[in-house]
Amino acid sequence: MIIIGELINTSRKVAHEAVAKQDSGTIQELAVRQVQAGANYIDVNAGTFVEREVEFLPWLVQTVQAVVDLPLCLDSPNPIALEKAIAVHKGVPMINSISLEHDRLHALLPLVSGHPCKLVALCMQRTSMPNTAQDRIEAADELISILTTQAGMKLEDIYIDPLVQPVAVDVSMGKAVLDAIGGIKTKYPLVNMVCGLSNVSFGLPERKRINRMFLALAMHSGLNAAILDPTDMQLVAAMKTAAMLLGQDEYCSEFIEAYEKGQFN
Amino acid sequence: MIIIGELINTSRKVAHEAVAKQDSGTIQELAVRQVQAGANYIDVNAGTFVEREVEFLPWLVQTVQAVVDLPLCLDSPNPIALEKAIAVHKGVPMINSISLEHDRLHALLPLVSGHPCKLVALCMQRTSMPNTAQDRIEAADELISILTTQAGMKLEDIYIDPLVQPVAVDVSMGKAVLDAIGGIKTKYPLVNMVCGLSNVSFGLPERKRINRMFLALAMHSGLNAAILDPTDMQLVAAMKTAAMLLGQDEYCSEFIEAYEKGQFN
Repeated sequence: MIIIGELINTSRKVAHEAVAKQDSGTIQELAVRQVQAGANYIDVNAGTFVEREVEFLPWLVQTVQAVVDLPLCLDSPNPIALEKAIAVHKGVPMINSISLEHDRLHALLPLVSGHPCKLVALCMQRTSMPNTAQDRIEAADELISILTTQAGMKLEDIYIDPLVQPVAVDVSMGKAVLDAIGGIKTKYPLVNMVCGLSNVSFGLPERKRINRMFLALAMHSGLNAAILDPTDMQLVAAMKTAAMLLGQDEYCSEFIEAYEKGQFN
Repeated sequence: MIIIGELINTSRKVAHEAVAKQDSGTIQELAVRQVQAGANYIDVNAGTFVEREVEFLPWLVQTVQAVVDLPLCLDSPNPIALEKAIAVHKGVPMINSISLEHDRLHALLPLVSGHPCKLVALCMQRTSMPNTAQDRIEAADELISILTTQAGMKLEDIYIDPLVQPVAVDVSMGKAVLDAIGGIKTKYPLVNMVCGLSNVSFGLPERKRINRMFLALAMHSGLNAAILDPTDMQLVAAMKTAAMLLGQDEYCSEFIEAYEKGQFN
């Protein structure tokens, strides 16, 4: 599993306050904790600041990469903020995200064509959210076609996000995403499947329990990357247990190591 | 999900002692607790007594059905014990189990041909345990063919058990069972898929955590029945959470009801 640490997002109070005060210490501590917990990428998102995002996103990149030797996941719908963040990023960034929405697609295509990068592509339809698995598979088909032919991207650099929606709104929404992951991964084995978890439990009690179960079920469908909190021990325990049962943990060694380190308490 | 309560099994100490003493009160209490927790069948197994099984199994049937208005799962490889248990059972029993092993198959076929019953059929090969998903699918093919043509059974009365084996012995064993469940259920949508859980975690720490995750993953593959302890709250919580995320809990009502009853604590 490729783990994208989600804690440096200004929709979270700690990160919002730290960015507002330009408090690099707090941001760097959030970054280091996630790396120590096993993150492969650190997501940076300053979206709540709207107009100052173009200034804050590159600041986050430099602040985090001053202490962390990892690529970042540059998380914004704003092409100008992304361009400025890419310009100061060391290594190959993950850009989060592109979609079929006309303005977003055409603003981002030149950016991703010109820079080596990994790219998260959302299964939005042109003007609406997807409902069924089929909606998502069709959006993925179109995105993959555009990205490989028009931006010259390799399949293995594309991360398709099926867009998780709340089961409390429509109980078919969980299965629709699971089936979409399976369908897309079967059609394009080299493409990565990624998602966030928290939307699935919106409006329900016991959200963390639901989110970690959804992670495990999505891994069974073929999810190989996730945007999550790597310091959440119960979530990581679910991920490692599922990986072992899916045959992804040779000799059960990661599971046993996590147990021996007391990570299941 | 069809839940087969597993607590009345003499490989468990409480049940062993109660059967040894012919203590009907303890057995009946184990039965009632499982019914109250949502069991659809109560498994009865007196296998540890070997020679007295033919006397104890029918005693268990009568003792349990004196207080519980449910069909039982008659759990024995011994055709004589099964025949005596069937003779005193009220309603349509589940017989657990038949397999392709020559003696067992030919002793049990006349029994299941003569009585309306549900039947658990194990994916054993003729002389050995299955390894791969393909081994299991081939055993299921043969079992289903024999049961429908030679015993006149309906597909919906057959419960195929893929035989779960420890991932600690071979980490591919979890995935082999998951793939077998998916493969058999796709080929025979009317056939039920059932399994026990505890073998998968044999030899590892955190066994209950592993077992409940395996239940959820197996449900994602198409498992629709399980032999388990319905009074294990964390296990039931995992089952209800997975059912909701798989779209099997309309309006999330069973999940919310379980939460409101405090079953997630």
